[in-house]
Amino acid sequence: MTDSTNKPTHVIIGVMGPGDGAGLDDCEAAYQLGQLIAGCGWVVLTGGRNAGVMDAASRGAKDAGGLTIGILPGGDRTSMSAAVDIPIVTAMGNARNAINALSSHVMIACGIGAGTTSEISLALKEQTPVILLNQSLETYRFFQQLAGEQVWMAQSPHDAVAIAQQLLEQQAFQ
Amino acid sequence: MTDSTNKPTHVIIGVMGPGDGAGLDDCEAAYQLGQLIAGCGWVVLTGGRNAGVMDAASRGAKDAGGLTIGILPGGDRTSMSAAVDIPIVTAMGNARNAINALSSHVMIACGIGAGTTSEISLALKEQTPVILLNQSLETYRFFQQLAGEQVWMAQSPHDAVAIAQQLLEQQAFQ
Amino acid sequence: MTDSTNKPTHVIIGVMGPGDGAGLDDCEAAYQLGQLIAGCGWVVLTGGRNAGVMDAASRGAKDAGGLTIGILPGGDRTSMSAAVDIPIVTAMGNARNAINALSSHVMIACGIGAGTTSEISLALKEQTPVILLNQSLETYRFFQQLAGEQVWMAQSPHDAVAIAQQLLEQQAFQ
Amino acid sequence: MTDSTNKPTHVIIGVMGPGDGAGLDDCEAAYQLGQLIAGCGWVVLTGGRNAGVMDAASRGAKDAGGLTIGILPGGDRTSMSAAVDIPIVTAMGNARNAINALSSHVMIACGIGAGTTSEISLALKEQTPVILLNQSLETYRFFQQLAGEQVWMAQSPHDAVAIAQQLLEQQAFQ
Repeated sequence: MTDSTNKPTHVIIGVMGPGDGAGLDDCEAAYQLGQLIAGCGWVVLTGGRNAGVMDAASRGAKDAGGLTIGILPGGDRTSMSAAVDIPIVTAMGNARNAINALSSHVMIACGIGAGTTSEISLALKEQTPVILLNQSLETYRFFQQLAGEQVWMAQSPHDAVAIAQQLLEQQAFQ
Repeated sequence: MTDSTNKPTHVIIGVMGPGDGAGLDDCEAAYQLGQLIAGCGWVVLTGGRNAGVMDAASRGAKDAGGLTIGILPGGDRTSMSAAVDIPIVTAMGNARNAINALSSHVMIACGIGAGTTSEISLALKEQTPVILLNQSLETYRFFQQLAGEQVWMAQSPHDAVAIAQQLLEQQAFQ
Repeated sequence: MTDSTNKPTHVIIGVMGPGDGAGLDDCEAAYQLGQLIAGCGWVVLTGGRNAGVMDAASRGAKDAGGLTIGILPGGDRTSMSAAVDIPIVTAMGNARNAINALSSHVMIACGIGAGTTSEISLALKEQTPVILLNQSLETYRFFQQLAGEQVWMAQSPHDAVAIAQQLLEQQAFQ
Repeated sequence: MTDSTNKPTHVIIGVMGPGDGAGLDDCEAAYQLGQLIAGCGWVVLTGGRNAGVMDAASRGAKDAGGLTIGILPGGDRTSMSAAVDIPIVTAMGNARNAINALSSHVMIACGIGAGTTSEISLALKEQTPVILLNQSLETYRFFQQLAGEQVWMAQSPHDAVAIAQQLLEQQAFQ
C-alpha cells in the first residue's frame, strides 16, 4: 500500500470485538487474526484494553513478531493489554471508537456487543470497509441491509485476512 | 425527574435518525416527535444539522414552544438547523455521537443509517434506554439480540413518547 | 446577534476559570459575571462542575433568572453544579475544553490554572475572542504576546461584560 | 522504563510546536530533537501534519531510524507528514491536543503558538512533565508561575533530551 507520495506506509488493520463479554470462540479467532495480520507485515490496532478480543488480537500479533497499537478509552495505561506496543491514551471513553474506525485501513469485527456495533457503524459512516467474523445471521443481515457494499462476511480468520488483502489492493489502486 | 439533590432538572430526549438520507416518513415522524416532546416540557437534543431527522425534530419542538439543543459535528455553526436554540460546537465529527448518547435521558431513534446505528449502540453501551421507531424487522431483531432489556419498539410518535414517560419515571425512582 | 438567516439566536458566553483551586476573589467575580451575563439575556456556558468558577458563574446566572449550560468532563451528572440547567455529558475529560472554546461566542477567563490556560489557548486557536479578568501581569503579558489582537483585559466584571457587548456587536456586523 | 508488570514498553516523547507559523529556528531544533530522541530508542509523537515543528521532528526521527506517531486533527491522511509511520486519524480538530498530552511520557515544546500552549497546559493538567525549548522569557515566566514543579527549561535540543532522560528515570522508580 502506498500513500499519495508513493512512499510505503504501515497498513493498519483494526480488530474490534467484545471486551469483558467476549466468548472463548471470539478470543481464539482474535488471537489467530493477530498472528495472521502480523504475518502479513501489517500493524494491529485495537481498543487497547487487557480484555477479550482486544487483548487476544494484540497477543497474537506480538507472538508473531508484529507491532500493536492500542487506542485506550481511559486516562492512563493501567487497563492496557500487556501486548500493546504503542498505547494512545485518549481519556475519551467510547468516543475513542471513532478513532479506531478512522485509523484502520480495514476493520475486522470478531464477535459483537454494543461497543463493537458502534465501531462497525462508525467505520461504515467513514467509508472504512468492514469484515464480519463470528457473527450471527441477525447481525449479518442487519449490516448487509445498512451498507451492503462495504461489508464482507468471513468464514474463518484466514478468510478474513484474505479479504483484507483484496480490499487493501483495491485501496492502493484508487 | 429529579437529580440527587432533589432539584428538578431539564429532561433531555435525544432524537436521532438519518440526515441527508432520511425518508419523508422519518421526517414526518421526527417533526411529530419534536412537537410531542416539547409538549411534555422536555428538551429535544439532536445532532444539530439542517438535514433530515435532526432538522425535523428541532422544528417540531420549536413550533410547539420547546427548547432545542444541537450537538454539531463541525467546527462552526454554518450547517446548523435554524430550529436549534443551543448549538454545541464540537469539531469532533462523528465522535460527537457519543455525546448525544450520554447527554440524553432517553434516546428515540427514528429511521436508520450508519450514524444512527452508532448513536443507538453508544447509548446501549452507556445504559441509556433506546426507543426504536420506523425500523425494519432486521433492525429491531438485531438490537433486540444485542441488548433486549434496554430497547423498546414504538408503533408511532405518540407511542414513543408514552414509553419515554414510563422510562423517565423509572429513572426518577432509582 | 443574528445568524446568517437573520434569525436571532442565543448568545453564549463562556466563563472559564479554576475549579477546586479557585480563590475567593475568582468565585466572587464569577458569581457577578453570571448575574451580569444573565441580565443581558445571554446564556452562560461553563465546564459544568460543582466547583470554583464554574459553579459560581452558574449560580450567579441562575439567581438572575438566566439559562446555564455545563459541558461536563465526566461520564455522568454526579459532579454537576446544581445551577446547571443543560448538562452536556461528554466523558472526554479535558478534551471537552475544546468544546467550551468552540461553543462560546466570547470567552471570559476569570482566574488561571492549567485547565483555564488550555481553554483560553483553544479559544484563541479557534478565533474566539477572550477577555481576561483577575489575572497576573505575567499571564496578561504571555497572552498579549501570543495573540494580542484577540485578547482583552478587563478591570472588573462590569468591564468584562461591557467589552463582551462590544465584541458581539462586531461579530453581528461581520 | 517499565510498566506495572515490569515489561519494557516503548517510551513516547511528544514534540509539540507551531505548524505553519513555525520559525526556521524552531524547525531546526525540532529536527535535531527528532534525531536525538530516535537515537535514545524512543518513539516520537507529534500532531502529525506536514508543517513546522511536527514535520521537522518526525523527519529527524526517521532520518535517525526511529519510529514516529502522528495524531492527526483531520478526518483523513491527506495533510500528514511523509515522515509519520503510524498515523492516528482523529477528526477531532484541536481536541486531539489532549491525546498528545496524555500519550506522551514527557512533552518537549519547541517554539510557541496558541495550539502549542493548549498542548503544554493540557500536559500540565494531566501531570505530564513539560520541557520548554526556544521560548521567550514571557512564556517561561508564565508557565513557571502556572506549574513550576512540572516545567523545565532547556538551553538546546541536547539539553532537552538529557532532561527527558532524567524525568523518565524518575517515572520508572515511581
